[in-house]
Amino acid sequence: MTRILGIDPGSRVTGFGIIEAHAQKAVFVTCGCIRTHTTDMPTRLHEIYTGLQSLIAQYQPSVLAIEQVFVSRNVSSALKLGQARGAAIVAAVVQGLHVHEYAPNQIKQAVVGQGHAQKEQVQQMVKILLCLSAVPQADAADALAVALCHLHTAQHQQQLAKAGILR
Amino acid sequence: MTRILGIDPGSRVTGFGIIEAHAQKAVFVTCGCIRTHTTDMPTRLHEIYTGLQSLIAQYQPSVLAIEQVFVSRNVSSALKLGQARGAAIVAAVVQGLHVHEYAPNQIKQAVVGQGHAQKEQVQQMVKILLCLSAVPQADAADALAVALCHLHTAQHQQQLAKAGILR
Repeated sequence: MTRILGIDPGSRVTGFGIIEAHAQKAVFVTCGCIRTHTTDMPTRLHEIYTGLQSLIAQYQPSVLAIEQVFVSRNVSSALKLGQARGAAIVAAVVQGLHVHEYAPNQIKQAVVGQGHAQKEQVQQMVKILLCLSAVPQADAADALAVALCHLHTAQHQQQLAKAGILR
Repeated sequence: MTRILGIDPGSRVTGFGIIEAHAQKAVFVTCGCIRTHTTDMPTRLHEIYTGLQSLIAQYQPSVLAIEQVFVSRNVSSALKLGQARGAAIVAAVVQGLHVHEYAPNQIKQAVVGQGHAQKEQVQQMVKILLCLSAVPQADAADALAVALCHLHTAQHQQQLAKAGILR
């Protein structure tokens, strides 16, 4: 059984969500946020790294799913976001996780069924698909969305392979 | 004796340089580059991380010095650079190194004596200050420059503290 860790990294808040597949159905395992409690950049990166390392040690996911980022407010925020992503991705690869990136419209397509869905629609569908009692905090919901996108993509590729279309 | 690791991270080439202080004089220990050999981003970050971890294990520096970055060609290159910086900084903080960032004009001031020096002047001064037989590869020279800047700053603060100006 494959556990998928989805993350939505940021220098202040890193959302995470873990799901697994039972009989072709996505099942919720956990979700939440790693919040950094300092203004010191190296310490923030360390908190993101150790937070994700603990999570990986506890839940043993084998895949990391993360949204591709193409845009940012400006160069300064892109640098900050890049640093958080670098710390987060390294936390996963040193534990042997396979990393898969998905474009924002791929995630929306997989979760809502159309690539131009609104953020709120994605979050509502995360709640429905994982049978949650409420919409999780926004960063955690985004992390679950990219995890669902990976599961959907992997299952789709399996079906194509079975049908002999994809080898 | 404090060993200082200076780095100049990039997604393809990460320059590094290690120096130590002997009787108020900077002494060259080693320098070089970590080159990533793949186009796969998570693997690149892993290579930067493990490359620096090996270097830290071998040479046991206690400080990481790194240039502050404010500008980049565009958002996309800022994200790539940020990711490489994130992987590099985490490699140091998990080993207990203290991280110090210096602005580009601080580095030029410390190495050349003026904040608007040309890149080539900085590299020539690195060669002279460390008694090297040739100017090192550009990324390694930049890494040595930020290490020299840290040493200079730390020595200056020590002198101020001794004189009772800085406590």
